[in-house]
Amino acid sequence: MELLESLVCVDKNLPVPVYLQVANDVICAIRKGILKPGAALPGSRVLAQSLNLHRKTVVSAYDELYAQSWVDVLPRKGIFVAKNLPNVSPRALVATPPRTGFSQETLYEVDDTRVICQDMFVAPPEGNLVFNNGSPDTRIAPLELMIREYRRLASHKFNTKYLAYGPEQGSENLRTELAKFFSETRGLHVSPDNIIITKGVQMALYLIAQVLLNKGDTVIVGDPGYSMANEVFTQAGAVIAPVPVDEFGINLNAVEVLCKKQTIRMLFVIPHHHQPTTVTLCSERRMRLLELAKTYKFAIVEDDYDYDFHYSSSPILPLASADDYGSVIYVGSFCKTIASGLRIGFMIAPQNLIKQATRLRRLIDRQGEQLLEEAMANLLKNGDIGRHLKKANKLYQERRDVLCRLLQEKLGGQVAFTIPNGGFAVWMEYKNGVDRLVVTQKAAEMGLTIGSGCEHYHDPLVRHNFVRLGFASMNVEELEEAVDILARAVKKAEVVSG
Amino acid sequence: MELLESLVCVDKNLPVPVYLQVANDVICAIRKGILKPGAALPGSRVLAQSLNLHRKTVVSAYDELYAQSWVDVLPRKGIFVAKNLPNVSPRALVATPPRTGFSQETLYEVDDTRVICQDMFVAPPEGNLVFNNGSPDTRIAPLELMIREYRRLASHKFNTKYLAYGPEQGSENLRTELAKFFSETRGLHVSPDNIIITKGVQMALYLIAQVLLNKGDTVIVGDPGYSMANEVFTQAGAVIAPVPVDEFGINLNAVEVLCKKQTIRMLFVIPHHHQPTTVTLCSERRMRLLELAKTYKFAIVEDDYDYDFHYSSSPILPLASADDYGSVIYVGSFCKTIASGLRIGFMIAPQNLIKQATRLRRLIDRQGEQLLEEAMANLLKNGDIGRHLKKANKLYQERRDVLCRLLQEKLGGQVAFTIPNGGFAVWMEYKNGVDRLVVTQKAAEMGLTIGSGCEHYHDPLVRHNFVRLGFASMNVEELEEAVDILARAVKKAEVVSG
Repeated sequence: MELLESLVCVDKNLPVPVYLQVANDVICAIRKGILKPGAALPGSRVLAQSLNLHRKTVVSAYDELYAQSWVDVLPRKGIFVAKNLPNVSPRALVATPPRTGFSQETLYEVDDTRVICQDMFVAPPEGNLVFNNGSPDTRIAPLELMIREYRRLASHKFNTKYLAYGPEQGSENLRTELAKFFSETRGLHVSPDNIIITKGVQMALYLIAQVLLNKGDTVIVGDPGYSMANEVFTQAGAVIAPVPVDEFGINLNAVEVLCKKQTIRMLFVIPHHHQPTTVTLCSERRMRLLELAKTYKFAIVEDDYDYDFHYSSSPILPLASADDYGSVIYVGSFCKTIASGLRIGFMIAPQNLIKQATRLRRLIDRQGEQLLEEAMANLLKNGDIGRHLKKANKLYQERRDVLCRLLQEKLGGQVAFTIPNGGFAVWMEYKNGVDRLVVTQKAAEMGLTIGSGCEHYHDPLVRHNFVRLGFASMNVEELEEAVDILARAVKKAEVVSG
Repeated sequence: MELLESLVCVDKNLPVPVYLQVANDVICAIRKGILKPGAALPGSRVLAQSLNLHRKTVVSAYDELYAQSWVDVLPRKGIFVAKNLPNVSPRALVATPPRTGFSQETLYEVDDTRVICQDMFVAPPEGNLVFNNGSPDTRIAPLELMIREYRRLASHKFNTKYLAYGPEQGSENLRTELAKFFSETRGLHVSPDNIIITKGVQMALYLIAQVLLNKGDTVIVGDPGYSMANEVFTQAGAVIAPVPVDEFGINLNAVEVLCKKQTIRMLFVIPHHHQPTTVTLCSERRMRLLELAKTYKFAIVEDDYDYDFHYSSSPILPLASADDYGSVIYVGSFCKTIASGLRIGFMIAPQNLIKQATRLRRLIDRQGEQLLEEAMANLLKNGDIGRHLKKANKLYQERRDVLCRLLQEKLGGQVAFTIPNGGFAVWMEYKNGVDRLVVTQKAAEMGLTIGSGCEHYHDPLVRHNFVRLGFASMNVEELEEAVDILARAVKKAEVVSG
């Protein structure tokens, strides 16, 4: 029975009792057909010796095997692999190496095209500088504040309820604080019942798409636009109808033309710092858009993720704050206020839609992180969020100014851009036929990662020379170094193109 | 212009600058048509006086309104609501009370039957004792350990990356630790690439259903069974095919009959402590089920949420650990190990399915809580989870024994149940025609909440007298009090029925 010893491998540091490790390894061997029904097993003393274990341990292992009826114990004969096991066709170890027989392909069919995403997360090389798509600086995230709130919550026995199941719609405290926050900062007056807490804007968009869209429905989006939103709508079976975006936002004449010739189910708009071009939808277009939605009865999804980040001018009040007809669904998040990785967002809508979204939320993941939500509620209530936003805005404004100055100084003639009045990124065009992809590649070779890989245009084949430079996550020194590299990369690209 | 003063309400404690509050209130009034285009606004000195503000504040407010082109400034004439605004039809304040015009019904159509859930979260009355559906005791949740890990993570600048965007599939550290954990505790040998971290079992089931099921596909489930799983499959368009459950688990003869007469896409099984009846699927049936899946090429979804909670006997190795064909999808969670409210679970499958599930995860909420996942990884690595599981098992076994003893003593003749060999609940039947609903109602009147409201049977109209009593979340004293109330409630119910 050398075989058996070779199949059993024990690690005393594991949380599992050793006797159970032995029993489990034996069971694996039986199931793989390595130990056949009726095969004799070594006596406990022998096995204990060869495995260098206490005999009692092996006895318990055999008891376990007997209890689970994997072995027969014949008085004065010994222990044998049970005869009455279903006969599993044994396969050679080569086909399924020991300690893993798990197949890497399903036996049943899986449609590899069922879910399509243009790009997935890729970590930039360690130590690289990064012009991301527009993310906050995680180094200033008020993590200590969050942990302080966690501690406070944990210190009250009463709060253990936040560790149990809770409301699918999200923390009532947080929804109450948000209702205040929106009323104070956005002239948006809703009740907590109009709010559902989500995992960032992403989940809000997913819930909306799955609840409202049917196969073949038309959704109007700006082009260039936010590819992750388009993917969510497409996944729900919708057809994307792109309309142009100019310096005042999406072109509403194009929208009206579409409305006149077909039924529009939904329009997606980013009114502050349109992704990717960073333009703001002007007041006049906002009011006209509301009129169009009222006339043609489509839903406006207003993604106002950037409302709280303004430098030159103040933000314009949301469409939702002037919507008395129930046309607007208002979504946003705190992922940029705290950190992209702390997924907490919201969706505001009339109650008949909130009700459906809440049910779907239950089916998807039952509920959000109550502790995180309660912590956010406290941070909003005691003003920490407001204070942090003030600090962050000051810092990011400085970084925006530094980047724009550096781009002017070092790349003056070779690039064109408009200074964004808020947000986290600059939308820049390369001039003189410099190829953005070549620049990106050259920069990468010098330790600067550019771009999130996001496809900004609806038609991925469209030829353009724009790039989105997120400035918020780099400090002044890093920005200077990054622009230096960028300038050198552009020079090299010119050589290539010229 | 008394009107204006009445419309502007300032709160100096808000995070928003006062001048902006004034400006926003004026904008609201314009948009609501209360202030008509061309209407004259009071001079800054007058308004400042009547609002009891510094004049500079009102001047900034007017500057803001001018910058946003809501007002015209006519030299030596004064300030007027801008003429060139689109004409919004004004409505009386009675129709839309000030500070909220948000509609509670959408203008566009919403299908109220798009998402169906039999029940949603309802908080039990404060101070009530609760026989829940089977939840852990949040009072013993190792929250301090979690917070310790958060602190540790927060103390390293390097870890700020966990606050940024991360891998949709979940923390690589956690997936690596889980691969070890499964190998050690379950004889399940997979690579981290076979694992995706989810928000509890719920999200794993949702991902599976949305990726694999098409309209009209058949999914076999045990009856009685887990209604939330059935709802996820139904939402994905599948048809539920219920099969009976006996003391050894789901009836495989019934399964085979179904396989012979139609195409089966998926089978959902809870091998340990079937929800709700708490029975364990025996080894023989497990191996036969694998054979059936191989023959008829359906996917087995193995929900092993209870594997780590065993009292009398050891758990039986998962189906997944003996699956060499890629038939089994293994799902579970740590929601019962740490706390129901800390949503962290996993799905294990061949890589072609994991790939699709990961893409869908990105569309749903982009990623999980990296900090939570990293904390879990550390707790697994340093053995805290293993130690906590040992403690919890000891405690819950004691509570199970206490409940079963009390039920025997105080309700001996009136109820019937089998002592579960693990898990969090007892499946009990009322005898002598006592109506479970009457008992539940009587108990509620005496301060004991029974049941989660879960519909256990596929046919909600089926007449049964079973109830699921979760014992893990109550300590010994609470269990004694709860059973006392239950006994009295049963007596009252007997009077009603007899």
